[in-house]
Amino acid sequence: MMMISSVLVIMCIALCAGAEQYTYHTKYLDMPVDHFSFATNHTFKLRYLVNDTFFQEHTGSPIFFYTGNEGDIEMFAQNTGFMFDAAPEFGALLVFAEHRYYGKTLPFGNKSYDLNNVGYLTSQQALADFVVLIRHLQQNQDRPSPVIAFGGSYGGMLSAYLRMKYPNVVIGAIAASAPIFQFTGLIPCEAFNRIATSDYRSASPACASSIRKSWAHLNNMSSTDAGRKWLNENWKLCKPLNKSSDINELKDWLQNVYTSLAMIDYPYPTNFLCQCMPPTRSQNIKYEVMCQQLYNSSMTDKVLLKSLFKAVNVYFNYTGSANCLDIESSATQNLGDLGWSYQSCTEMVMPMCTDGVNDMFEPSVWDFAKFSEECYDTWKLSQILIAPSSCMEGRTYPLLPTLSSAMDFWTRGQVVEFCPVSPPPHMQLSYQKGLTTWTCVGRILTTQCLSKRQDFFHKNRIRAWIRNFHLLPPTTN
Amino acid sequence: MMMISSVLVIMCIALCAGAEQYTYHTKYLDMPVDHFSFATNHTFKLRYLVNDTFFQEHTGSPIFFYTGNEGDIEMFAQNTGFMFDAAPEFGALLVFAEHRYYGKTLPFGNKSYDLNNVGYLTSQQALADFVVLIRHLQQNQDRPSPVIAFGGSYGGMLSAYLRMKYPNVVIGAIAASAPIFQFTGLIPCEAFNRIATSDYRSASPACASSIRKSWAHLNNMSSTDAGRKWLNENWKLCKPLNKSSDINELKDWLQNVYTSLAMIDYPYPTNFLCQCMPPTRSQNIKYEVMCQQLYNSSMTDKVLLKSLFKAVNVYFNYTGSANCLDIESSATQNLGDLGWSYQSCTEMVMPMCTDGVNDMFEPSVWDFAKFSEECYDTWKLSQILIAPSSCMEGRTYPLLPTLSSAMDFWTRGQVVEFCPVSPPPHMQLSYQKGLTTWTCVGRILTTQCLSKRQDFFHKNRIRAWIRNFHLLPPTTN
Repeated sequence: MMMISSVLVIMCIALCAGAEQYTYHTKYLDMPVDHFSFATNHTFKLRYLVNDTFFQEHTGSPIFFYTGNEGDIEMFAQNTGFMFDAAPEFGALLVFAEHRYYGKTLPFGNKSYDLNNVGYLTSQQALADFVVLIRHLQQNQDRPSPVIAFGGSYGGMLSAYLRMKYPNVVIGAIAASAPIFQFTGLIPCEAFNRIATSDYRSASPACASSIRKSWAHLNNMSSTDAGRKWLNENWKLCKPLNKSSDINELKDWLQNVYTSLAMIDYPYPTNFLCQCMPPTRSQNIKYEVMCQQLYNSSMTDKVLLKSLFKAVNVYFNYTGSANCLDIESSATQNLGDLGWSYQSCTEMVMPMCTDGVNDMFEPSVWDFAKFSEECYDTWKLSQILIAPSSCMEGRTYPLLPTLSSAMDFWTRGQVVEFCPVSPPPHMQLSYQKGLTTWTCVGRILTTQCLSKRQDFFHKNRIRAWIRNFHLLPPTTN
Repeated sequence: MMMISSVLVIMCIALCAGAEQYTYHTKYLDMPVDHFSFATNHTFKLRYLVNDTFFQEHTGSPIFFYTGNEGDIEMFAQNTGFMFDAAPEFGALLVFAEHRYYGKTLPFGNKSYDLNNVGYLTSQQALADFVVLIRHLQQNQDRPSPVIAFGGSYGGMLSAYLRMKYPNVVIGAIAASAPIFQFTGLIPCEAFNRIATSDYRSASPACASSIRKSWAHLNNMSSTDAGRKWLNENWKLCKPLNKSSDINELKDWLQNVYTSLAMIDYPYPTNFLCQCMPPTRSQNIKYEVMCQQLYNSSMTDKVLLKSLFKAVNVYFNYTGSANCLDIESSATQNLGDLGWSYQSCTEMVMPMCTDGVNDMFEPSVWDFAKFSEECYDTWKLSQILIAPSSCMEGRTYPLLPTLSSAMDFWTRGQVVEFCPVSPPPHMQLSYQKGLTTWTCVGRILTTQCLSKRQDFFHKNRIRAWIRNFHLLPPTTN
């Protein structure tokens, strides 16, 4: 999940410029920084990308609208193949809107993350940006263009929210791996890490169990001078461990590696999010490459730790060009990283925990008080606001057509649709399964990922939405 | 419509304290002033009224939630009989929430309307207040309490919006005379005044035509010293007309009187909004009392103007206690009045116009530029923000269950429901008709106003919503 490991993700984006494939024009639109009050007049320029190659103007052809994530919008435009692939058939205008406070869309320039400016970084404001942009795109069309939202991960949550909150603006949403239930009280906090573990376990049971054992070895090793010396040398740490508590940073980095790997498990070669590891050719090859170092679950401590280092080396240093393991490079204070840090302290508080029994991670409880304190230290947010927004509750959302169009379809290859007859537990299940299959979301809805049946299903949905829109045209004065 | 003539409405509220009938406790809840950004930590106390006489705690009994209008919430609590009448049958908790910036809910105390504080007066923020309050009310119930929103006029718009924007919070809404389509491009700007005219015409065709003629007489009279002297004396104006342009203020006042009278045309005695005129016993008696002075459409100028004065005297000085006609008293700068002035310059820009042919008013076009300039003079709002919010478009809203529960039911005695099969023109019609029948909204959904069939219909709807809610309970962790 990008939301968990934005640190890693952003690092990879910075390091690995991908070969560009899809083309578009870059445009900007003036946007008020606050859509919900009149307390400030400040405006900024929102970046968006447009491809009108296939658009049939004035015919009521649709707009395919990507709701940008927590990062540079170009990366998402390059990895949303389904939109490009489907555009000719629908005569669609392709639009990729950047999320405020990311990429080149910085409402207060390089002062955007100053404490007195960052407060307008919220999903609600971003959704309103999208609405204003959509209205701008729709004007001057002789026949109104219906809009379908697309997104994956946080961007998928935004697509789903856009359909839920502005059904008058968006006629449908295809939201892939959008964890709209990953909030307090909606699913167990263990869910995410259990599913990540099951991915490793399915590649090799020994792999998951070796990783589980490694935490104790790392703790023991780092508790003595000799052990730290051994680790500094054998793990080639750029910044050596000097005291036992220094191990925590390394363990956090490892946890991020494992979950990131689970998330970018694509069944085809891609450089989405990271090209630092070998392009995978089959769904499990990435695990196999990594897990082949961890085939034996009864290795002793140093043997295990050496093997583990070789395993993660595959991830961070596949080309062999790094002289040392720089876990700090992942914590670069670039804006994308900062942005998600802020959002995950405000609206997007997603409780996560591990028990070390049903998952392969070191046990850790979800401690909201501590989390909240850390958020306060970083962002000086008053405690009262550090909570998931009450306007975006997923689970208690009624099962309206809104949700039925916002779904995580890539659930172990099965299309699972949220629809009015599905009870909440079913929705939860489809979400949980969705997590393991973020696999395809790198190239969100890339046709390559879709079986013929799925491709047919989604295009059919879009066709039905458009037909319904034109049957009930909005009347103007 | 309260939104048109808030000046008058507020005057009447100030002058006419009604006899209280329904009881409740007054409570307050801390509320952030901004629900959509983290740019300010300011909070305030939101007032709400509670009656728990009939509430069956922990049984999943509903909360009937009144979404407060642009005025003191107590007035609306005293005039929403249906909620009190239906509460025993449903075991409902009754809650009346005050709208921010009105009544006793002033986010910045007596500085709330300072230009640097007033910007948080928006319907979107008010809706979020309601959501936070509802979540507060629902906690500690062993079985979740579903919420049904009620409201009339602007409060009805809020009920409808609450259901549309937060279907996860409100299971249904009964919105009476809620002009959610009274925005640019949604209905013709003449609609409102034509319907008001038709009310007068149906009481007596001569009445409407006398009023139509009076504008020219007023203009002629005020254009000369002698004419102004005559008007000052015969109309007993507290503030005499000194120049010809002074007539405009008087004409505005008259227009407000006519439309207000059309709006508070209840088929039963009431002191809602104003007790300055005699309680009406039948639907048309108010017009009759007024229009009996205007029975002859061929009166000459002075005769007509004298008759007109007697007619409006019925409205503003029924008890005979006023020594002079003080049209300025209506423009008292009380907060409710100020609030609507602000809202109608920001989100609630409702285009109105007259042609003097199909209506009885002096012709006037809808001049957005002029309107916008006046708003700027008063509120120093940047032009860019003076427009109806793009998040609250009524007409283009898809015909979802959301809208089907938000309806203006009192349309010439007929229940007209917005439902997925109704085309937009139908919705428009039901709205237009609704305007003439604001009649009953004074005591919004007062059982007295409802035919047996209507009473049955609404209770059945509520029952179905509740049943559906309990069939699909929100699952918690």
